[in-house]
Amino acid sequence: MSEPGVGGSSADASAHYRACIEYDGGPFVGWETQDNGIGIQFLLEEAIHTISRQRAVVEGSGRTDAGVHARGQVASFSLPVAVHPEKLRRGLNAVLPPEIGVVSLEFAPSDFHARKSALAKHYRYSVLLGAAKRPLVRTQAFHFPMRVDPAPMQRAAADLVGTHDFTAFAKEAHRKRSCVRTIYDARIEVDGALLHVDLMGSGFLYNMVRIVTGTLLEIGQGRKPETLVRDLLEKAPRKLAGFTVPPHGLCLMKVHYERPFSW
Amino acid sequence: MSEPGVGGSSADASAHYRACIEYDGGPFVGWETQDNGIGIQFLLEEAIHTISRQRAVVEGSGRTDAGVHARGQVASFSLPVAVHPEKLRRGLNAVLPPEIGVVSLEFAPSDFHARKSALAKHYRYSVLLGAAKRPLVRTQAFHFPMRVDPAPMQRAAADLVGTHDFTAFAKEAHRKRSCVRTIYDARIEVDGALLHVDLMGSGFLYNMVRIVTGTLLEIGQGRKPETLVRDLLEKAPRKLAGFTVPPHGLCLMKVHYERPFSW
Repeated sequence: MSEPGVGGSSADASAHYRACIEYDGGPFVGWETQDNGIGIQFLLEEAIHTISRQRAVVEGSGRTDAGVHARGQVASFSLPVAVHPEKLRRGLNAVLPPEIGVVSLEFAPSDFHARKSALAKHYRYSVLLGAAKRPLVRTQAFHFPMRVDPAPMQRAAADLVGTHDFTAFAKEAHRKRSCVRTIYDARIEVDGALLHVDLMGSGFLYNMVRIVTGTLLEIGQGRKPETLVRDLLEKAPRKLAGFTVPPHGLCLMKVHYERPFSW
Repeated sequence: MSEPGVGGSSADASAHYRACIEYDGGPFVGWETQDNGIGIQFLLEEAIHTISRQRAVVEGSGRTDAGVHARGQVASFSLPVAVHPEKLRRGLNAVLPPEIGVVSLEFAPSDFHARKSALAKHYRYSVLLGAAKRPLVRTQAFHFPMRVDPAPMQRAAADLVGTHDFTAFAKEAHRKRSCVRTIYDARIEVDGALLHVDLMGSGFLYNMVRIVTGTLLEIGQGRKPETLVRDLLEKAPRKLAGFTVPPHGLCLMKVHYERPFSW
């Protein structure tokens, strides 16, 4: 157990925290509160208030969309008066809905910021292949019953690696800011009827993993050429990219704050 | 695709089927309809009627309790007039709720009976260890946050193997009939924070896997002696066995109709 992150003067009772959070994104409008519903961030802030009677602003490593899951979302927040992390963690888990869990909670240095300190993120998109309806994986994998060859998908995914302008893989609304990102590694993993698209990157544009996955699936079907990813990164317009797969197959697996970025 | 199982005379248009069914048992009262709600069996019979306009009696390999899942439940049924299995399967999956899926459907010999022809079943009970609340596995694993050592659990589980009177592991109500069953193999598998109890047996008494798992967990905690399973099989009364773990960690993985019984 580390010491409170803020202090120096013993009169300062405040503390800074780092939390690892797992959630089933199914019932929520996403990390952030939206016009149509409340977000996971808000539920965490309310739970912190319920347990500690103190107000905190919870910063996530990034937003996740409505329906997207997280196994390793990271959040940071401060409290004016420190509460023991394990006591706070247990209290939060008791009042949070069953779909949100604080997996770990610890004191953090005062300059730790879940978003600004993040160096890389691992997102996984899971696809259920084959004709079979599989109720036990239905909430965490997108059922795509078409015939798909993973080999060209893996070759096309390798073209994502590097620093590129990913404008062609971004949703229209988010193209005003820079679309340059670095992908450190991209893998296709087949596990029985499940196919996972694993991307490790410096950051991801809105809907980027879902558009990448839809594009790779169409390449796997042979409906689009293996060179499409390379072409899209160089010059080809967004409309040539694949479809956007639904949110429930996507999961934020891990946020990295230190190198190396291992799966 | 095999031929219809009933026939001989070309005037006989009937057919016999074997189905493999996966379900999320969470919302249901179990395989059989009960006073307090409808069962999965009934929903299958209704779906068959909706799609084929014919009435069928669906026989399962065995009942599963309320809240128990199945990855490989097997059912058999006959139709007076044959419907192509793949056409029927797709129709059933379209009208069944998302929690029930017909994974495969094929013609079967007319003497195939899902329960009577079954030689062995594989049940898995999944336990989430550690203090962490893990929303993404909450519906398919029982969270048991106590410290548990899997080594004595594995040694005690090995005592289950063989043909024994399992009265001490049966729920009171079901002790009128013979409680002799054969366990072919019993394994403890640790996968990260998940611990699986895998049992392969000729058949299982009501609540037997859940009482076995509760007993093994208490042995793993050191609260009960490693020799308890052996003692319970020999003579010790039911009240010395462990607690009954809840249903949502239990899954009927596979029903075997042929030897050898591989995991």
